[in-house]
Amino acid sequence: MGAMDVRALIFDVFGTVVDWRGGVIRDGSALAAARTPGLAASSVDWPAFADAWRGRYLPSLNRVRTGELPWRNLDQLHRASLDELLAEFGADALGEADRAHLVGAWHRLDPWPDSVPGLTRLKSRYTIAPLSNGHVALLVNMAKRAGLPWDLVLSAELVHAYKPDAATYLSGPGLLGLAPGEVMMVAAHLDDLAAARSHGLRTAYVRRPLEWGPGGTAPEPRPGDELDHVVDSLTDLADRLGA
Amino acid sequence: MGAMDVRALIFDVFGTVVDWRGGVIRDGSALAAARTPGLAASSVDWPAFADAWRGRYLPSLNRVRTGELPWRNLDQLHRASLDELLAEFGADALGEADRAHLVGAWHRLDPWPDSVPGLTRLKSRYTIAPLSNGHVALLVNMAKRAGLPWDLVLSAELVHAYKPDAATYLSGPGLLGLAPGEVMMVAAHLDDLAAARSHGLRTAYVRRPLEWGPGGTAPEPRPGDELDHVVDSLTDLADRLGA
Repeated sequence: MGAMDVRALIFDVFGTVVDWRGGVIRDGSALAAARTPGLAASSVDWPAFADAWRGRYLPSLNRVRTGELPWRNLDQLHRASLDELLAEFGADALGEADRAHLVGAWHRLDPWPDSVPGLTRLKSRYTIAPLSNGHVALLVNMAKRAGLPWDLVLSAELVHAYKPDAATYLSGPGLLGLAPGEVMMVAAHLDDLAAARSHGLRTAYVRRPLEWGPGGTAPEPRPGDELDHVVDSLTDLADRLGA
Repeated sequence: MGAMDVRALIFDVFGTVVDWRGGVIRDGSALAAARTPGLAASSVDWPAFADAWRGRYLPSLNRVRTGELPWRNLDQLHRASLDELLAEFGADALGEADRAHLVGAWHRLDPWPDSVPGLTRLKSRYTIAPLSNGHVALLVNMAKRAGLPWDLVLSAELVHAYKPDAATYLSGPGLLGLAPGEVMMVAAHLDDLAAARSHGLRTAYVRRPLEWGPGGTAPEPRPGDELDHVVDSLTDLADRLGA
């Protein structure tokens, strides 16, 4: 683990700190329930829709990462994939206001039950920030609503580069005035952590079984992953880090 | 004032939220007191030094703003002017560790007595952030030490443009996903507010007499300044804004 002390923790957000699947299903279903039966939103299988929408996420980011598209924030990318998917799910009649509301669902995601207590404890000892592909406004709206007690908000938007680009990971230590080894990336995704580690950051893996669907199982790290910590919650991480 | 509701408050920091003069005097004097009499720091008139150091601030920023210097953060600018001033104050013998410690004094400034209570109240109703020429690491270190409860940290560093450049002011609404008229700049300096207003932001002026020296008097705004609010503290601002 090296002799350097960790000073800051930076967090993946979607799936690690908040439950994107539950939030999208909740807002989609509420839209359907608020309508006269037979209207567009009522015909959608929202659990399936949530997974399909998230499925467009990486291909969508990659179009920006490869330079095929100029910089677009997540609202813009989510809106483009929403429009495609509504057509595929037979709900193309959904109007403009409802589409905008659904894009906003990603700003209104609920934290996992341990997220706020864990972050609150970790904040007493470390600087804590998201380092998310979500843009600043989305992360701020989410934090205000959910009570996520960030010290500051770090985002791919600040460097116009999406994870796993090196620039995104290095913006954490860079803006915090720290060495990469003084910063720990916390995520529920092993590929995110492998990229962070390749740029010299420390790593903590949070098992989030529900990130993999109802009744899901979190992937187990392999020895070669060389994670600094493997935990089951952010309160568990606070225990490990003495916070 | 327009019909648009204010959603976010962004704050000048040095002089508005924290007391730079008192902090520099405190750390300079402590350095002197910790030394054998006769050593470099003991010979310095620290109150005069603090004012002289702050006096180099705008000329120093302007060398970056005009393109004479490439981007430099405040630590770098403060260090260059510190080195010049120590020679002028007859304290050129001060060593590297002490110089680094003095540059760090700007990270360790104390809030005015009303700052934390005022910000805490304002945060319950608005998004609050610094919008300072200080870099992100400085603002984070200051906030962690002083307990400033920012929702996020905005800084000239994020756009590599110092106030009063337009890009700095506009980065506030831009990153928050708001219209300029939904964002209020809060400052103890009328020129800062005039620039913010020229870019469509709302404005609140905080009278900070001590910003103008011991026994000082805050400049009174003139009718043409068209400020939205004129207050004597951040708790006073919370009263005005119903927070």
